[in-house]
Amino acid sequence: MSGESAFIETLRALAHHPAARGLLDDTAVLQVGSETMVLTHDMMVEGRHFLPSQSPADVAWKLVATNLSDLAAKGAEPLGVLLGYMLADGRDEFAEGLSEVLDHYGVPLLGGDTVSGGPPQAIGLTAIGRATHSPVPSRSGASVGDGLWITGQVGAAMLGFEALRDGTEEDSTTYRRPMARLAEGEALAPLVTAMMDVSDGLLLDAWRLAEASQVSLAIDSRAVPIAASEARRLDALRWGDDYELLFTLPAGTEPPVPATHIGTVEPRGFVPLFLDGEPIANHSGLGWEH
Amino acid sequence: MSGESAFIETLRALAHHPAARGLLDDTAVLQVGSETMVLTHDMMVEGRHFLPSQSPADVAWKLVATNLSDLAAKGAEPLGVLLGYMLADGRDEFAEGLSEVLDHYGVPLLGGDTVSGGPPQAIGLTAIGRATHSPVPSRSGASVGDGLWITGQVGAAMLGFEALRDGTEEDSTTYRRPMARLAEGEALAPLVTAMMDVSDGLLLDAWRLAEASQVSLAIDSRAVPIAASEARRLDALRWGDDYELLFTLPAGTEPPVPATHIGTVEPRGFVPLFLDGEPIANHSGLGWEH
Repeated sequence: MSGESAFIETLRALAHHPAARGLLDDTAVLQVGSETMVLTHDMMVEGRHFLPSQSPADVAWKLVATNLSDLAAKGAEPLGVLLGYMLADGRDEFAEGLSEVLDHYGVPLLGGDTVSGGPPQAIGLTAIGRATHSPVPSRSGASVGDGLWITGQVGAAMLGFEALRDGTEEDSTTYRRPMARLAEGEALAPLVTAMMDVSDGLLLDAWRLAEASQVSLAIDSRAVPIAASEARRLDALRWGDDYELLFTLPAGTEPPVPATHIGTVEPRGFVPLFLDGEPIANHSGLGWEH
Repeated sequence: MSGESAFIETLRALAHHPAARGLLDDTAVLQVGSETMVLTHDMMVEGRHFLPSQSPADVAWKLVATNLSDLAAKGAEPLGVLLGYMLADGRDEFAEGLSEVLDHYGVPLLGGDTVSGGPPQAIGLTAIGRATHSPVPSRSGASVGDGLWITGQVGAAMLGFEALRDGTEEDSTTYRRPMARLAEGEALAPLVTAMMDVSDGLLLDAWRLAEASQVSLAIDSRAVPIAASEARRLDALRWGDDYELLFTLPAGTEPPVPATHIGTVEPRGFVPLFLDGEPIANHSGLGWEH
């Protein structure tokens, strides 16, 4: 793993160019004339990010929705996507799911590349957006005294995954076809001090927000709306794939969209995260690290 | 192959969105406020587009340079790249080559994604540019009476590939580390009626330009500057990877950069391409189709 880290550090160093405020594995913000562009790229690999047994239409939906979710966290309006598609079985179903998700969000496929190769199949997607508010929200702006908020609820994707895995009748839509909170992100962008989407688990992503902002976050676990039973509350807080927006607002500011107050921003303590007053000593086990 | 074609047709249909003038496997042009963005995405797969034995630094160079060449053909100034990197051996060498090519062109790495998976390794790159001239040059604007021109010479990449393959002392730089004709593309953009880069072979790419413009091109094979011996002239015309710019200019217009007049644009005949007066009946064998 240290080899990987060194490589990622090298790439991060390359990304520290004055023209760019983005970093690898994060969303890039690029000023072009009077416009502020927001750019994100994700790669999904068969067997890692999706299973060969999964519906290619659902894979296409998730690939697009998760990239659009990155734009939502920046309050950006999506302008289009570029696709890198390694040809494989299920290509018609993939194109169908792609068509559905692009229609749903009114986003065009601008171009891309199709290649032979694999297995495993690898698919890349670049989403291009335009910031609707400047400065563009980041993870690093949370201030002591701010409130911590989240849209929607967490745990629905977990239940969807388990329904699929166990072949039950429960609804798996939230896991298979997540929604990007684009309208909410745009409405929140002018108000938030920090914002990100919850892709890898509420606790892990909150940890990252705290680290980026150099503050501590105190979360009231019972305040977090969950889609699961009370017995699964901690699981729901650790599960990812919900793509809700996690954000901080100055005290007294009410969000213009449905959201729940789940904690507060505190001075940087000896750990970045407190759950119900208990310090969280390290981030292993808080969510999905990849 | 018909399955692949149907898929690509489906993706092409998706790309026919009013907001987009680009098509899959081609460069996308996107109007954002007062700015015209040019976007391209390429994926390279180990064993298809590069060999496991190839230097990862050279792979990085080629991935970036070929995407920048797509921008050059649009007269676009590169603003940055996003990388989708599947972790594999040789990552430090890859990062080094990436650093070299980005430094060479003064282009920042804006962001991207690193994933586990493979083999085979798949690597994707998205290049973002800003058009320096509007309308942005395309393949489809060649008019009857225009002259057909090319920058530089063809065949050097072929010789470089053969030197590598045969382990000779010949210089393989042009094959391993192609150059994107960015300055030339920018200078030519206001003047050309059509422009593209020669990536898959002069004859095949000229065929595509003729098809897109609905004209025929008459090429004088002896006029084409080649890096190879006279005996290899036809091979050089069919080989790709040279990344020179192929373009059409109105009769009487001289190019502002070093280039060679190699033919003329004629009314659409029964074939799109005539070589030394001989009709080329189909495009198989003209270059590298993938």
